[in-house]
Amino acid sequence: MLPPEVKSVLEELRAERIRGASWMARRGAEAYLILADLLEGDELRKALIELRHELPRINPTMASLYNLSRFIPVTDNPLLVKSRAEEFLRLIDEAKKTIGNIGSELIEDGDTVITHSFSSAVFEILRTAKAKGANFKVILTESAPDYEGIALASALEREGIRFEVITDAQLGLFARNATIALVGADNVTRDGAVVNKAGTYLLALACHDNGVPFYVATESFKLHPELKSDEVEILERPYARQGYRVRNFLFDITPWKYIRGIITELGILVPPREI
Amino acid sequence: MLPPEVKSVLEELRAERIRGASWMARRGAEAYLILADLLEGDELRKALIELRHELPRINPTMASLYNLSRFIPVTDNPLLVKSRAEEFLRLIDEAKKTIGNIGSELIEDGDTVITHSFSSAVFEILRTAKAKGANFKVILTESAPDYEGIALASALEREGIRFEVITDAQLGLFARNATIALVGADNVTRDGAVVNKAGTYLLALACHDNGVPFYVATESFKLHPELKSDEVEILERPYARQGYRVRNFLFDITPWKYIRGIITELGILVPPREI
Repeated sequence: MLPPEVKSVLEELRAERIRGASWMARRGAEAYLILADLLEGDELRKALIELRHELPRINPTMASLYNLSRFIPVTDNPLLVKSRAEEFLRLIDEAKKTIGNIGSELIEDGDTVITHSFSSAVFEILRTAKAKGANFKVILTESAPDYEGIALASALEREGIRFEVITDAQLGLFARNATIALVGADNVTRDGAVVNKAGTYLLALACHDNGVPFYVATESFKLHPELKSDEVEILERPYARQGYRVRNFLFDITPWKYIRGIITELGILVPPREI
Repeated sequence: MLPPEVKSVLEELRAERIRGASWMARRGAEAYLILADLLEGDELRKALIELRHELPRINPTMASLYNLSRFIPVTDNPLLVKSRAEEFLRLIDEAKKTIGNIGSELIEDGDTVITHSFSSAVFEILRTAKAKGANFKVILTESAPDYEGIALASALEREGIRFEVITDAQLGLFARNATIALVGADNVTRDGAVVNKAGTYLLALACHDNGVPFYVATESFKLHPELKSDEVEILERPYARQGYRVRNFLFDITPWKYIRGIITELGILVPPREI
């Protein structure tokens, strides 16, 4: 049985609507720290087995939760759980910084970066590029119905980065004004498809049609070692407008062929030549 | 000088946010009927010259207002204005019915029709297909930020047509579930590009990528005899969210090459072979 303190973190993760896969992974690792403080021996082992099952189920498309649940060993020893969870948190931080450095090299003076939804990896790239002195602007979507884009606008404002907010439906209209597209990912499948906020695939198509390079920024812990794109189950959340039910699948799937590169802390992954 | 009764129709047209080009054209024709009741002789002639200038300026991308302003002759004779305006209104009605008949032949049992925004021509096709006994369903977008999609949902509900509402950003995700796409147009340029509610171009790209035939339904009075796609000026309306200005261009432009056919009352126009 999971202790109530850990269960409440799982509930929090299930209810989360704005933050992305990196935040979820971090909060998940914190659940392991809490667990290691509360249980030991056989109770701990049973709880770890349960968590390995429960954590990925919170969002089956999120590779980060899957990878986290396998990064922590099933053991009787709380110290081992604690040190692995802390290592995971450290790797998240380091990965984010490295992605910021690698990705920022793609942004040049005069660039117009187009993005969709709020990716903390993309934000780190923009922040780093700005700190390195690049003069660029960002086009971003409001990202209905949860409006993560407005949170990104506010974060960019604090960094002094110029931006323009658009409605989601204008992605095609504004893609042709962009010089580079940068989005995050909740999951990269084994066959190289990017699972990210619904609308990402539309942006990729519009970029392809307008010759704008389309990059994805993501920590390597979001690469799913097993899942293929046709096996992705997309989470849906309830949403209604004026009394009508509105379908609200959170993600869509962008195939490898529309992606110029996936920026990770290990370097930029590019599609194999045969694709 | 235009009489206040006519000016107020122009104001109404400028303020209109939900209804499409057909409704605008009809209301514009009614402005001429009002004018013909109020003025004659030289005053009428001057007002007609002013209206020919003012009407297309309400929305420069709307071919219907342009064509209407040229359908009505500049004359001293109010009877002539009245009969031409009535003819225009009759042609609108007849065109809509014919489009419904022609377009409904494209819809078969088991089809899933995907659309974006609220086109009265598309609605007429769906209504006619249903009346002919076809069993199909419709996927439609809520169409932020004015939510014309909800008005369409309500109209389909009254007709007993099955439908599913999605957010605009899910167009790519749902396009692969569709068997045919049907949208309206505010304007078809001389070079065959379709100017329609922003997001239409994204739907066309997603249909192209998934092998779904993409059709446009529009009365021939929306074919612009002069304007080319690179000359289209897209109207923007003010919109803000949480204190941030959000760009809100109403339309985007879908090139000929992504369009399987344009359904008009004259028949289905198909791209010339060389495109």
